[in-house]
Amino acid sequence: MTDTAQPHCVVLDWGTTNFRAVLVDAKGAILDRVETPDGIQSVPASGFEASLAERIAPWRKTHGPLPVYASGMIGSRNGWIEVPYVHAPAGIEDFAKAVRRAALRDASSILFIPGLTDMSVKPFPDVMRGEETQLVGYGLAQDATVVLPGTHSKWARIAQGRITSFRTFVTGELFGTVSRHSFLAQVAKPRGAPDWAAFARGLDVARGVGASAGLLSCLFSVRTGWLAGELDAAQMTDYLSGLMIGAEFREAGDLGWFEPGQEIGIIGTEAMAELYRRAATAFGLTPRPGPADAAMRGCLAIAAMAERLEGSGS
Amino acid sequence: MTDTAQPHCVVLDWGTTNFRAVLVDAKGAILDRVETPDGIQSVPASGFEASLAERIAPWRKTHGPLPVYASGMIGSRNGWIEVPYVHAPAGIEDFAKAVRRAALRDASSILFIPGLTDMSVKPFPDVMRGEETQLVGYGLAQDATVVLPGTHSKWARIAQGRITSFRTFVTGELFGTVSRHSFLAQVAKPRGAPDWAAFARGLDVARGVGASAGLLSCLFSVRTGWLAGELDAAQMTDYLSGLMIGAEFREAGDLGWFEPGQEIGIIGTEAMAELYRRAATAFGLTPRPGPADAAMRGCLAIAAMAERLEGSGS
Repeated sequence: MTDTAQPHCVVLDWGTTNFRAVLVDAKGAILDRVETPDGIQSVPASGFEASLAERIAPWRKTHGPLPVYASGMIGSRNGWIEVPYVHAPAGIEDFAKAVRRAALRDASSILFIPGLTDMSVKPFPDVMRGEETQLVGYGLAQDATVVLPGTHSKWARIAQGRITSFRTFVTGELFGTVSRHSFLAQVAKPRGAPDWAAFARGLDVARGVGASAGLLSCLFSVRTGWLAGELDAAQMTDYLSGLMIGAEFREAGDLGWFEPGQEIGIIGTEAMAELYRRAATAFGLTPRPGPADAAMRGCLAIAAMAERLEGSGS
Repeated sequence: MTDTAQPHCVVLDWGTTNFRAVLVDAKGAILDRVETPDGIQSVPASGFEASLAERIAPWRKTHGPLPVYASGMIGSRNGWIEVPYVHAPAGIEDFAKAVRRAALRDASSILFIPGLTDMSVKPFPDVMRGEETQLVGYGLAQDATVVLPGTHSKWARIAQGRITSFRTFVTGELFGTVSRHSFLAQVAKPRGAPDWAAFARGLDVARGVGASAGLLSCLFSVRTGWLAGELDAAQMTDYLSGLMIGAEFREAGDLGWFEPGQEIGIIGTEAMAELYRRAATAFGLTPRPGPADAAMRGCLAIAAMAERLEGSGS
């Protein structure tokens, strides 16, 4: 942290499995950051304020009370308070109007950004918490299709300054459970650097190169490839990763999320974004990377709009 | 066991997670049975004979040495000995010609039935061990399409007295890992009797009733249905089961395994067969149940053929 910069606020991205906080100055520059694996599922229901206070104690000690802006699952039924979902289509103003505040013991306050629901998804409305803020940080000015890889990967459409629709794919979670708890776990060796050839092979199989392909049958090819001597134990996990991300792109294509030749925005950590860039290219799309700090940018934009609206008495 | 019946042999169905042995008379009637969860994965590589001896000790004590006929993963790379796969198409004689024998310490012997491989499956040849024996026990005389639900569910085609092709779907394994290790496990309540309405709803979603459907997006509906108040915690697991079995039928249909209106044989335990009967009906198929003791019937038929071939010196 530079000594001269004046902290303005704390921005939280507090999800199911991770706690991420950044200390930000008035211009949106990051002065310091804290990341821990204390996702909301590891914090008791009454313990969120204490958990937050512990994690940002050094900042408060140095700078005094600071406003906190939070997005993600912290604003869900299993979080600090449940903020009702905004309905898609929605833009910055819609999110800003629906924020909730809570007073903190140090006389500052915390602002929770609402999640987004797409009521048009069948059989049940789809939901996101946190990704809407990243999409705002990515930018809503230009029409786009954007994928946000993760435990529950999201595909979203941006049009006319709003998030108009989205869809969830459980790719990350399924990859995690299969690689840790299936027959794979008994055979596969830990990965070092990604084996891009194995990953690309998985993508090809999911794309149906040389055969029609569904996920339940394709998944068995991790085992049969090993039995056939075509995949060694060190390649299985990357092959599986390609298979699953490829299946996500295939399903997304079947659902009309893209046509080959289109551009696709990608918002995610560097390692995840790299996997999705390669998958996008394999499916004939042009990847367009989003900013690394999309969550913070979106949080600041929505919080600033909320304060403007409150200031104008609307 | 009746006092007068004369035991003829011991038939084993020894798979990855279960040990099943039946004591059989010369007419194929079951005199006694032993089932334990001692699948091959819980037995050390050098311990198979001792494990078998312990489990069938009472039979040997009463009746002396008895020939043992075994099918399933016990004949695989991770089992007692690795019996090479027979290549599809294959009938009883093909299996009988490829059996392997090992001498046992009590002067009897154990016969291992080979598995089956379908070299035409892409991207890698498909494999089965144990199901080929169940298919023989189901009967190869009449042309049929048969599904064998399980950890790795198999769809097989029988034509002109042989198993001509087959395909594996990892439905059971994926259902197990998702229901035990995903977000579901944190919410779903244990099941009592199946909730058939929830199961049927899952089938409908997988069939794409009212929307196109892929597994990665459909799986999220377990969560969104709960969030929307449409699925309660006690229904989630049966809904998931319907979703996954429905996805298997949908993939099988896409791969050309059936056309609506056809008959489909089902070989499995009563509880599993009931799920697949309901799924088959939902997909417009006429289910035809197989015999409960298909594995034993197939094992006896192949062993008898092997002895006939050996007797004739072929």
